[in-house]
Amino acid sequence: MARDFAAELAECRGKIDDVDRRILDLLNERTRVVERIGKIKADAQLAVYEPKREDQVFQNVKEHNGGPLSNEAAKRIFERIIDEMRKVQRDRMETGN
Amino acid sequence: MARDFAAELAECRGKIDDVDRRILDLLNERTRVVERIGKIKADAQLAVYEPKREDQVFQNVKEHNGGPLSNEAAKRIFERIIDEMRKVQRDRMETGN
Repeated sequence: MARDFAAELAECRGKIDDVDRRILDLLNERTRVVERIGKIKADAQLAVYEPKREDQVFQNVKEHNGGPLSNEAAKRIFERIIDEMRKVQRDRMETGN
Repeated sequence: MARDFAAELAECRGKIDDVDRRILDLLNERTRVVERIGKIKADAQLAVYEPKREDQVFQNVKEHNGGPLSNEAAKRIFERIIDEMRKVQRDRMETGN
């Protein structure tokens, strides 16, 4: 019997859609914490951008990466996440909400 | 009593590190499925790049985004994720593993 490539792909894609929804939920959870940090920093009059803290984030990712994603690829993804969340923090500090 | 901003920030950062490890685990889970897709596509001699499928991924994210992350920010993060995973698929097809 011939392999049903279409069915195999559909199964994989269903799994990816499920994983993506879980990633999205965690990104929103992370955003809520970042919003809280933005508020604390505004109250304490601290700078949004802290390169040392960003290094800690990358270090945490690198230390816990079991693969198969390479450390470099994981770092690039987290750079994008951090970049987007920095925008959230700036917006929060500007509006003061 | 004065607020302990440092303690508040440390608590938030501990939460972020935990969320990041969970995101990382899911990214690796996603990579494993993408590797499987790469293998199926190689066997079926299908193209790696399928813009229609990428639209479905973004649609799934948009439909399930409860915020506070904006749809635009979520899309940019998933663009990076997809971009990194496309590289994984290409590598897999080239090496044939």
